[in-house]
Amino acid sequence: MTQQQLLNNITIEFDPRSQLCEAASHFYKQGWMLGTAGNLSVKLKDGSFWITGSGKSKGELCLDDFVRVYPDVYPEGTEAVINEAIAPQFKALKPSAETSIHQVIYEIFPEVCACYHVHSIEANLVSNFVEGDELPLPALEMLKGLGVWEENPNCTMPLFTNHFHVPKIAADIRSYFQSNQKKQTQVPALLIRNHGITVWANSPKTAFHYIEVAEYIFRYMVAAKKAGI
Amino acid sequence: MTQQQLLNNITIEFDPRSQLCEAASHFYKQGWMLGTAGNLSVKLKDGSFWITGSGKSKGELCLDDFVRVYPDVYPEGTEAVINEAIAPQFKALKPSAETSIHQVIYEIFPEVCACYHVHSIEANLVSNFVEGDELPLPALEMLKGLGVWEENPNCTMPLFTNHFHVPKIAADIRSYFQSNQKKQTQVPALLIRNHGITVWANSPKTAFHYIEVAEYIFRYMVAAKKAGI
Amino acid sequence: MTQQQLLNNITIEFDPRSQLCEAASHFYKQGWMLGTAGNLSVKLKDGSFWITGSGKSKGELCLDDFVRVYPDVYPEGTEAVINEAIAPQFKALKPSAETSIHQVIYEIFPEVCACYHVHSIEANLVSNFVEGDELPLPALEMLKGLGVWEENPNCTMPLFTNHFHVPKIAADIRSYFQSNQKKQTQVPALLIRNHGITVWANSPKTAFHYIEVAEYIFRYMVAAKKAGI
Amino acid sequence: MTQQQLLNNITIEFDPRSQLCEAASHFYKQGWMLGTAGNLSVKLKDGSFWITGSGKSKGELCLDDFVRVYPDVYPEGTEAVINEAIAPQFKALKPSAETSIHQVIYEIFPEVCACYHVHSIEANLVSNFVEGDELPLPALEMLKGLGVWEENPNCTMPLFTNHFHVPKIAADIRSYFQSNQKKQTQVPALLIRNHGITVWANSPKTAFHYIEVAEYIFRYMVAAKKAGI
Repeated sequence: MTQQQLLNNITIEFDPRSQLCEAASHFYKQGWMLGTAGNLSVKLKDGSFWITGSGKSKGELCLDDFVRVYPDVYPEGTEAVINEAIAPQFKALKPSAETSIHQVIYEIFPEVCACYHVHSIEANLVSNFVEGDELPLPALEMLKGLGVWEENPNCTMPLFTNHFHVPKIAADIRSYFQSNQKKQTQVPALLIRNHGITVWANSPKTAFHYIEVAEYIFRYMVAAKKAGI
Repeated sequence: MTQQQLLNNITIEFDPRSQLCEAASHFYKQGWMLGTAGNLSVKLKDGSFWITGSGKSKGELCLDDFVRVYPDVYPEGTEAVINEAIAPQFKALKPSAETSIHQVIYEIFPEVCACYHVHSIEANLVSNFVEGDELPLPALEMLKGLGVWEENPNCTMPLFTNHFHVPKIAADIRSYFQSNQKKQTQVPALLIRNHGITVWANSPKTAFHYIEVAEYIFRYMVAAKKAGI
Repeated sequence: MTQQQLLNNITIEFDPRSQLCEAASHFYKQGWMLGTAGNLSVKLKDGSFWITGSGKSKGELCLDDFVRVYPDVYPEGTEAVINEAIAPQFKALKPSAETSIHQVIYEIFPEVCACYHVHSIEANLVSNFVEGDELPLPALEMLKGLGVWEENPNCTMPLFTNHFHVPKIAADIRSYFQSNQKKQTQVPALLIRNHGITVWANSPKTAFHYIEVAEYIFRYMVAAKKAGI
Repeated sequence: MTQQQLLNNITIEFDPRSQLCEAASHFYKQGWMLGTAGNLSVKLKDGSFWITGSGKSKGELCLDDFVRVYPDVYPEGTEAVINEAIAPQFKALKPSAETSIHQVIYEIFPEVCACYHVHSIEANLVSNFVEGDELPLPALEMLKGLGVWEENPNCTMPLFTNHFHVPKIAADIRSYFQSNQKKQTQVPALLIRNHGITVWANSPKTAFHYIEVAEYIFRYMVAAKKAGI
């Protein structure tokens, strides 16, 4: 591990919230976290994670706008359990309504320490390009940025139904990855129909790149469909 | 009420113009207040409201570019009445040509204290997607940002004819909401054909979010139509 | 004339170049003056005008990147004449290749003191929407920003053929406006096919707004065509 | 040569990396170097060149993120040879995976001293507009910005197949230009299918303009196709 990587890790351990504020501000400027949409989290070494609070303007987050969630026990990721899991000093601030999705991602992929969810227009559009639960991705060179290092890659992204009750989405995600346990996930990302993308990575910086690259691919797909190619 | 909410209210009461300058500058950068288009207002506790002056560049407003309107009497919202209603020290500056629309919104919704009107390209486009006076909105997760908390919501936005004489538009709006008095408005926003969106809220910050979310939905609708989905 | 208008005029008279640098930088950021494309000019009281030099990056102009042209004699706007017309201290810097178009505009419209020419993608696209020499404009509320104050306005913008030899374009423009002398020009703007828009106004600020509004209308037209409405 | 040109050259000779950081940051903001995509290089007088390191975020490069490559020997541009060619003090940092393409460009065009490669969505799209190896370009005035000074120019851009093994792409490029040695290249740019554009120029500033103008033309082509013109 280089000194820089070491320093990055130390920063993450001590307080990842500034980095999340910066990422959210950037995503807001891209139009991916408008209103109060989207949520970002980073897991700490003790297994707890910082996540953006509910109802906050993502373009102007400050350190007080995060909730630290201690998911020691989360049998089925219900909202009740999540509320139990919040550290007392943050009880006044509600964690993101989609906290259960972050919890499930950290549960399924233990090596993951960052989980980002944003709502781009293009992610919503491509989620309506197919009827099934797998979205085929075009063979762009940029797929390398999602970790796909193949000649003419043929990959898909899992696509979930949007439910009003978010823990139901989380349960679908857990169930999908558990039943596909032996199948490698092709890309570290999933879509919820009409509800945006979620990516996960072993560092906040890589999660940031994954969002960028996935959104690039969605923009390409939308433009290709409009141009009829 | 939290201390922050209290402080926000105090700021609004004392002078909301800086916040309006900032919002206008942001909307200008999005391309929604180009030239001198659009107008923003905030109502004070005495029932008067500050509104952007006519013919000002919205990207670079200063405090002197606003007019304070005292609409104690506004029988049918004519321009003559509006001119009467302007405080003497601001007679030199004309209030926005669309002041009568703001007046009607404050009249119909007494709890509202901010009313924003911008001219995006997408708002103009979607206003031509239907012939009637109701625009159906897609069931995006982002609708939550307009206060719609339902599974697969099925909602519409009212759509008005553009008249050269603005008080005629204002009269149509009053008449629409009066005749639908018992029907809940589904979203705090209305469209004027070829003339942009108007939103209203109980705080400037919420009005800002409503504009963002509504414009997001319009961009989605335009892109979906272009992509044929 | 208000004190502010007076001050604006004094600034223009003394040196309008800073204002042109700022406008060019803004247009560059919009993608309308990429590479070294486009040119801006402001006329002074003595009939001479400052114009951007040829081959300069429009996103980062400085005061030395302008040429002052003294068009006392310009029989048919040839390049030779233009070179004659340049003040000696600026002979090293060539004026914009399209100086003859600015000269013709100042000649036809004596009250005009600013002329801006930019190359947007949308201006190029709409110039290919029709085959004739008049582009119909949609009846958007935003047309008010080009000085069209009518109910459901029905207006067009003149459209010229692009010639490699720019003075030939300039001659076409002079000829068009001379033969239509009695007809009011509907909007203070013209298009050259595949070559962008030129606007003129009685102040640099108004020319800036005209560019913004015209480009807004072109973007609307392109999007409406793509969406099939 | 003017004093400014002289100073530019001196800067380039002494250290072109700051200029590359700035260009990369700008391209990143345009969405052309997202994730860690793209690479920029500048050749020095001794024939070596500075190139962006592999896996770096292009929006926030610093001087340490570059590798200096000494291509004294590069028989067929293999990766092995490139690794040999890296100055010892930079062995820790890998040069861009596409270094072999830069090497070939500097080899074919000895007067070139800057080579830029970016990944726009539009470059990917237009690379799928034709099946052959030449992309026809529209006759826009903006083509002058790529050095095409003709009435109604009729030009094309060479288009290469994307191979997973980059030196194979480099070999195709060398072979194409060697077999077309006597044919003038029409524009200083080439496309790789689904993999973006590469431009070359005799100064970093001109390479920057070439990228801007080429991307402008691609955006026009995509929009024209979407609008059906």
